[in-house]
Amino acid sequence: MGRPLKVAAAQVGAVHRTTSRAEVLDRLVKLLEDASTHDVKLVVFPETTFTTFFPRYYITDDEELASYYEYETAETGPVTQTKNVKAFFHRAKELGIDVQIGYGEDTGNGRYNTAVYVSGKTGDVLNKYRKVHLPGSTEPFDLDPNTTNQLEKRYFLPGNYGFQAFRASSLKETCGGSSPIVGQLICNDRRWAEGWRCYGLQGVEILCCGYNTTAYAPQLWGGDQNISTEKAYEEAMFHHKLVVQAHAYTNSMFCITSARAGNDDDRHPLIPGSMIVDPEGHIVAESKTREDELVIATIDLDDCKQGKERTFNLGKHRRPEMYGRLVEEGGVKPPPEV
Amino acid sequence: MGRPLKVAAAQVGAVHRTTSRAEVLDRLVKLLEDASTHDVKLVVFPETTFTTFFPRYYITDDEELASYYEYETAETGPVTQTKNVKAFFHRAKELGIDVQIGYGEDTGNGRYNTAVYVSGKTGDVLNKYRKVHLPGSTEPFDLDPNTTNQLEKRYFLPGNYGFQAFRASSLKETCGGSSPIVGQLICNDRRWAEGWRCYGLQGVEILCCGYNTTAYAPQLWGGDQNISTEKAYEEAMFHHKLVVQAHAYTNSMFCITSARAGNDDDRHPLIPGSMIVDPEGHIVAESKTREDELVIATIDLDDCKQGKERTFNLGKHRRPEMYGRLVEEGGVKPPPEV
Repeated sequence: MGRPLKVAAAQVGAVHRTTSRAEVLDRLVKLLEDASTHDVKLVVFPETTFTTFFPRYYITDDEELASYYEYETAETGPVTQTKNVKAFFHRAKELGIDVQIGYGEDTGNGRYNTAVYVSGKTGDVLNKYRKVHLPGSTEPFDLDPNTTNQLEKRYFLPGNYGFQAFRASSLKETCGGSSPIVGQLICNDRRWAEGWRCYGLQGVEILCCGYNTTAYAPQLWGGDQNISTEKAYEEAMFHHKLVVQAHAYTNSMFCITSARAGNDDDRHPLIPGSMIVDPEGHIVAESKTREDELVIATIDLDDCKQGKERTFNLGKHRRPEMYGRLVEEGGVKPPPEV
Repeated sequence: MGRPLKVAAAQVGAVHRTTSRAEVLDRLVKLLEDASTHDVKLVVFPETTFTTFFPRYYITDDEELASYYEYETAETGPVTQTKNVKAFFHRAKELGIDVQIGYGEDTGNGRYNTAVYVSGKTGDVLNKYRKVHLPGSTEPFDLDPNTTNQLEKRYFLPGNYGFQAFRASSLKETCGGSSPIVGQLICNDRRWAEGWRCYGLQGVEILCCGYNTTAYAPQLWGGDQNISTEKAYEEAMFHHKLVVQAHAYTNSMFCITSARAGNDDDRHPLIPGSMIVDPEGHIVAESKTREDELVIATIDLDDCKQGKERTFNLGKHRRPEMYGRLVEEGGVKPPPEV
């Protein structure tokens, strides 16, 4: 192995609306400590990891809604440091583990669905990403409190940082003296080729992506509203794996995906499917449960070379002058009926 | 079914360097006639269908090279009409079948890897597409005449028509009074998200794609040069299906893929994998042989709606202002080492 790296997806099982941050953080620290015993150098945690996935609820109480975000101030610095979250980052640094973790971010000027990548060496935030592709709608599909809604467009602004790759300098020595090039996505972003390609065009070798993906919500998906829970679960897992494997392959990068899984509030099932996927699109390791679980693999970043130099040599084979439509505003423009 | 359409992929088995156009055309007409007995309305044929896949050879004899193209002149009109090809289009019109078919095109000013879509009603060319993503290199990897090369960049110019969707007016009545929106890709294009998305942004419902994909050429792919033929075949099929299923799903369109399959010259194996894939990314029908074979399915274009209106509502969820990198020239730009 030329540039070996031991990585993990830290899948997190059910987190209910009533689950406290303190309880979640205990579980996250336990996953970190498990990772440490396996000598893992990078752990990817899910989206909105410190709380339940609150965009599923139509929340009319502003105080409750506010409780799901982390707050960044001049005093606390760039990482979310409130509400007992400090201890988690402190432990990661003690153990020397790089971490990507997602949370609802309130900047005072706007709320975002955010993930930070924090160095296990210095505790510094090496990169912050804000989810670009917010799914769902601003208004609820259904006012029934038992129904799964998808209100990310209501509770978050679309990410305004773009897709900025960075070097994980913390992993430079481990990876043969060359810092891995890392990109970050969150949940629904993984279904959109645009973000992946923006990272591919920066030579990204490891894509980190946490997610909350509902295992049953035909009211959101459209199509067969009487689909069985088993069939819906299979379909959600199929689509999740399909997009991650295809985009990892066509951009010649590893991808670590980490699920918030389990059955939140005993009525909102989420898919697992935490995986490590290689640059040829193959699943190297994947979760076996719907609970808290560490999915570990040793990868070799040199394996990105084959694709990047041959089939998916982006500089050699792409034709940007033909792609103008990709950056046009105005949505879908069908040819006129004839 | 709201907008039903019976379609087929016409897979074509081995075509050797020595196989005559006349022999190939007989086989193509037979496939057309089979399609007609099944009441198929649209048949997608492979890439460079009238000859063997000549870009695999390092051809130094200009006369031989010239023999692989079709010639378009003021007299013959916009479709390739030379070298006995006329009879094929004539038969398609007699049978009332829409056809997409690929061929090497020589315009007098340049050579392209081209596919036309021809109306079964009028015989008119409804659209012409020229392959944008030419794989391989201008110089041969290997001068050994038995080795598979990949010289498309030597023998073709990159397509200059972009990704222009069109309405198949010929199928308007069949499809409930609304003409299908069709897009065309050729072979390697199917691995590149950009073309698919350009079509998605035009509301394409049926993507037609013919291909020649080598089942064994590690010298072209890089990686393990001692890979077994079985493993290489599996890998090529895996990648082919992965990209088609993922891009069909993420753009909410049907895709008809048609292979030149079989073992050309008894030493250049090509994968089969002719398929009809639905807008949820599922394979509806696929080829069972490596020979001439018709793969038929009745699809309902209304099935595109679920994805186009919800998860992959491109107008609602995309953020073009974040995609600037996609149209920049200059290839891959990694962040500096730190």
